[in-house]
Amino acid sequence: MSAISIGIIGCGYWGPNLLRNFAENEAAELRWICDTDEVRLAAMGRRYPAAQTTTDYQRLLADPKLDAIAIVTPVATHFAIARQALLAGKHLLVEKPLTATAREAEELNRLAEHNQRTLMVDHTFVYTGAVRKIKEIVRSGELGQLLYFDSVRINLGLFQPDINVLWDLAPHDLSIMDYLIERQPDAISAIGSCHIEPGIENIAYLILHFADDFIAHFHFNWLAPVKIRRTLIAGSSKMILYDDIEPTEKVRVYDKGVTTNRVGDREADYQRLVSYRTGDVWAPQLDSTEALRHVVVEFLESIRAARRPLTDGEAGLRVVRLLEAAQQSIKRGGQAIHFASVT
Amino acid sequence: MSAISIGIIGCGYWGPNLLRNFAENEAAELRWICDTDEVRLAAMGRRYPAAQTTTDYQRLLADPKLDAIAIVTPVATHFAIARQALLAGKHLLVEKPLTATAREAEELNRLAEHNQRTLMVDHTFVYTGAVRKIKEIVRSGELGQLLYFDSVRINLGLFQPDINVLWDLAPHDLSIMDYLIERQPDAISAIGSCHIEPGIENIAYLILHFADDFIAHFHFNWLAPVKIRRTLIAGSSKMILYDDIEPTEKVRVYDKGVTTNRVGDREADYQRLVSYRTGDVWAPQLDSTEALRHVVVEFLESIRAARRPLTDGEAGLRVVRLLEAAQQSIKRGGQAIHFASVT
Amino acid sequence: MSAISIGIIGCGYWGPNLLRNFAENEAAELRWICDTDEVRLAAMGRRYPAAQTTTDYQRLLADPKLDAIAIVTPVATHFAIARQALLAGKHLLVEKPLTATAREAEELNRLAEHNQRTLMVDHTFVYTGAVRKIKEIVRSGELGQLLYFDSVRINLGLFQPDINVLWDLAPHDLSIMDYLIERQPDAISAIGSCHIEPGIENIAYLILHFADDFIAHFHFNWLAPVKIRRTLIAGSSKMILYDDIEPTEKVRVYDKGVTTNRVGDREADYQRLVSYRTGDVWAPQLDSTEALRHVVVEFLESIRAARRPLTDGEAGLRVVRLLEAAQQSIKRGGQAIHFASVT
Amino acid sequence: MSAISIGIIGCGYWGPNLLRNFAENEAAELRWICDTDEVRLAAMGRRYPAAQTTTDYQRLLADPKLDAIAIVTPVATHFAIARQALLAGKHLLVEKPLTATAREAEELNRLAEHNQRTLMVDHTFVYTGAVRKIKEIVRSGELGQLLYFDSVRINLGLFQPDINVLWDLAPHDLSIMDYLIERQPDAISAIGSCHIEPGIENIAYLILHFADDFIAHFHFNWLAPVKIRRTLIAGSSKMILYDDIEPTEKVRVYDKGVTTNRVGDREADYQRLVSYRTGDVWAPQLDSTEALRHVVVEFLESIRAARRPLTDGEAGLRVVRLLEAAQQSIKRGGQAIHFASVT
Repeated sequence: MSAISIGIIGCGYWGPNLLRNFAENEAAELRWICDTDEVRLAAMGRRYPAAQTTTDYQRLLADPKLDAIAIVTPVATHFAIARQALLAGKHLLVEKPLTATAREAEELNRLAEHNQRTLMVDHTFVYTGAVRKIKEIVRSGELGQLLYFDSVRINLGLFQPDINVLWDLAPHDLSIMDYLIERQPDAISAIGSCHIEPGIENIAYLILHFADDFIAHFHFNWLAPVKIRRTLIAGSSKMILYDDIEPTEKVRVYDKGVTTNRVGDREADYQRLVSYRTGDVWAPQLDSTEALRHVVVEFLESIRAARRPLTDGEAGLRVVRLLEAAQQSIKRGGQAIHFASVT
Repeated sequence: MSAISIGIIGCGYWGPNLLRNFAENEAAELRWICDTDEVRLAAMGRRYPAAQTTTDYQRLLADPKLDAIAIVTPVATHFAIARQALLAGKHLLVEKPLTATAREAEELNRLAEHNQRTLMVDHTFVYTGAVRKIKEIVRSGELGQLLYFDSVRINLGLFQPDINVLWDLAPHDLSIMDYLIERQPDAISAIGSCHIEPGIENIAYLILHFADDFIAHFHFNWLAPVKIRRTLIAGSSKMILYDDIEPTEKVRVYDKGVTTNRVGDREADYQRLVSYRTGDVWAPQLDSTEALRHVVVEFLESIRAARRPLTDGEAGLRVVRLLEAAQQSIKRGGQAIHFASVT
Repeated sequence: MSAISIGIIGCGYWGPNLLRNFAENEAAELRWICDTDEVRLAAMGRRYPAAQTTTDYQRLLADPKLDAIAIVTPVATHFAIARQALLAGKHLLVEKPLTATAREAEELNRLAEHNQRTLMVDHTFVYTGAVRKIKEIVRSGELGQLLYFDSVRINLGLFQPDINVLWDLAPHDLSIMDYLIERQPDAISAIGSCHIEPGIENIAYLILHFADDFIAHFHFNWLAPVKIRRTLIAGSSKMILYDDIEPTEKVRVYDKGVTTNRVGDREADYQRLVSYRTGDVWAPQLDSTEALRHVVVEFLESIRAARRPLTDGEAGLRVVRLLEAAQQSIKRGGQAIHFASVT
Repeated sequence: MSAISIGIIGCGYWGPNLLRNFAENEAAELRWICDTDEVRLAAMGRRYPAAQTTTDYQRLLADPKLDAIAIVTPVATHFAIARQALLAGKHLLVEKPLTATAREAEELNRLAEHNQRTLMVDHTFVYTGAVRKIKEIVRSGELGQLLYFDSVRINLGLFQPDINVLWDLAPHDLSIMDYLIERQPDAISAIGSCHIEPGIENIAYLILHFADDFIAHFHFNWLAPVKIRRTLIAGSSKMILYDDIEPTEKVRVYDKGVTTNRVGDREADYQRLVSYRTGDVWAPQLDSTEALRHVVVEFLESIRAARRPLTDGEAGLRVVRLLEAAQQSIKRGGQAIHFASVT
């Protein structure tokens, strides 16, 4: 079984991590490294001398021996490169978010489908030990009925020149929620504010509205004094706290909840209608493998088996659709965007 | 200088705390204790034998020697009792929220004004060492321009039979913000969900919209596995983290922020437009006096000096107006409620 | 079944807590309250009007209708009062530490035995939900072989005029260890230092030496900037972290340990002889009943059933013996005190 | 000004970090890489192609163009290599601990002195932003009189085949204390236990005895369920908590202490002789430069200027003397080892 040959376009912040993981995977052969910055390109070339380097990604598309491409360029360029790559018959791993618009993502999905190529998006967090463990717990049903999803991802920094905090941070949590909950909202409303750069939101709040009482809320912030990455997933039987800052016990399962017990006595005004239930807390051991290693394995295996990857182009589309609607809601001052009208 | 005579109506959860603080204050004379529950009333009577007890609050209104009344009954009853008490010429301390509607609060303010009586609302948190220290810092201007206010108050429990999480928890954070920021929003939007009792929201998110880029956001939740009470107040120069769960260092001032510095070089795509600025962190010592002691002192002193108390009826009205609008927004699925149209 | 009549001698810091718990227990009848301070005595008398008050504890000893006495006076006075009380036929609950010397504790045990009276020491922590849960886990054997016990109890404050940090804080941890481990050390060595008051140690370290490799260590400190109350109990299979400052998850059981696997290859110098084993972490739900309530119940039930209480005079003696030897070691600059030579 | 030529002996766990830091420093020229393991050597050679590689460190000693050597081999080999290197006229940077015995360290100091060569020990922690900031604070005198130093360094793991927890972890904290306090103890006593490998202590407690009331205590542990790296440095005016696990606020300065105020009234038994003083807490911003970069700079500059480095051979000797005495005390069951008798 020969290795799958890989070309990587884009060696900025995230690209070198993908390069390293492809280089360390024996089922892959790192064939091309591409970047418009020659200095960076040369540095990567020295690190991986067996690969060819180029500043022109068209050379990758034109190489009939190249099986697959990873696109790790700025979001605005994803669609154009990905479209040509699919037309050239290449399998694709695209950095998140998949594209800058839902329409583009839909087009890529159609092309991948038509050309029978793998289209995968790098929703890295889905491949962490923490999120996979939470998925296992959610799937087991032990949380009971899911009630809400609340995520906070804030810290100081990493202002991007081309995208706002929404497009930078929200793909993480939206892809986590998409994977864990497997439900699509009816509508989304969002609020943002630009305190640093006009037109570039550095703080944003999102609410996803569902057909029933389930509710999802997100807080993204580039201008916070402390770093918080914390998600609550509440069920009627148990609740999960996922704190990504914790060095070891990232996931805690609380055997907590409420039991409704109506009271009818004289002191009803001061009685509680509902009583607490608090039990043990459990922090499962988590696989600490670098998530990107799993991303690379999943990409290679889905190509090999001609099957859909876990985070396929449809998952990428769902996240972009949420981002696009959220951005639209922010522009309209928080007005709810309904998905029936969007699609 | 004779003591101000006090009557307390309502000895449920919070009433005994007020009783104790009035009893310990030498400028007050605890004259009446009133509760509809005779068992509770008898217990309080034994504890404060010098006070008269009654199940009928009309006796307090009719007592010409009674100067002031504290109303610590369920919200729905505040207006009726407070109105009669003002008409009877009593000074009033009313438990938060002041009333169940803004219209009622306006009426009480008018009556208090007309009868020249003190009308104070028990916004207890305003009197904590933490909030007063934050006020001092905000007032000094060292935070720079205020950018956002973000508050999370969640835990498991204390479901109320008659009010939802909004009316239960939001008065705390809204009154804190009102005191610290001294600005009124143009509009409010809110989302809530009822997971336990139909019609009684146990989770709510509020966003306050202001004329400029300042933004305020709140998360209230009775169904969370962990207890969080944390507020971020970000300025352009410094930021404050107020964590009320911390046993000692509740307030931290971060000398952190961003500096905009445009870049123009070849690597612009990967450079940051903005750079961090991180300096020292400072946790000021806080006055640890029980806040309620300050509440009682402020009430007595404002009566004595015939001046407005810090948390006067107008502060109570502003909070009720926000609650009312938030509730309205929840009912309309998150639609923004503009205050021009409300008032 | 008539109530057991109780007299309490000493209403300083801890006495009122015992008063309250006896008053709330229906199996007890609070018959006498005694304190040399008349103001304090009068205050307690008003709170519990059914009890008689006196500044002379001899009146309790002389009352034939009094069944049992709780001694909550300074340590130096325990022996004299307790001895007379036992001779007067009273059952005894004595505040920790039981006495100021092991010889006194032995004498009290002899008297209690001879007069068939209950002699119990108030080792309160033994009755907390946390310690009882840990005992359950230790007893189950799931920790494997016990390896060490390490306890830190430090904070700023509560300097005592008459005793040092050792006699103030060590009874807590020594009684916890005594209860959990059920082993007696062969020797003890201790070091202390007096930074504030000459002759009154404000910091002390203790090491207990056992016949095998098990080791126990303690750090007591009245002059620390932070409050830490944390105990590690390590077994060959699992380890426990007991953090008494944590509001809810006070006890954590770590499924962690090491596995010895010798290596013999060329790189032996850099290989590890032993590999880690890390599994789940579990925080069991704890009974949150006030420990003193259990103390009172245990005292009353052991009197009723004429059985030994959980923390009997022998437990009190064991702790005093350790304190006495530790103090002796401190005086000798840390020299080990062997218990064969002590007894 | 030509670069100082460097050879590194030992490329195991720590060596590659030194290699990288020398390679990145323009004042150094990486001339030789030496390791007995040919695979590892080849890997390092590929990474730094300009340097020569060898399995025989004698080739470094024989190279007249080589100025300085870094010895990063197992402790047992330090002396033999260092001695030959000094005799060959090389400047030396030796990994901590400097040698396996104090006698060896003394000999190296004599040789370096005699040959006028720089002898520096890699006490890395001394060069961290945290420790340098603490030194600045201690030096300013604002802590008042130093009262105690208490350090805990525990975690699960990293069992070494050749050395025990004392020789592995204690050099960190002993060198930190040596740097900060600048005092030598009169005696040391230590206790250890071997739970995993016979003869290899995995837990150790050290106490350093000084001429006055100052006291220093250390807890080292390879078999703890949680990772703790925390040092308390208490002064009569202020206290420092240095928590190396904290991601950002590693150093906190507590304006806390006690004030002695004798009392003489009736309630003396229950009054405190000493009252608390609690003020602000301050977490200074720290230089986050990798400490090893400073180590390399200090080594090169002290060679260049022919001056003593901050952590010179004498500092290395002082730490080894403490380690040796501590080991001796452990062997004697905790008996105090006096330094007058040692030297």
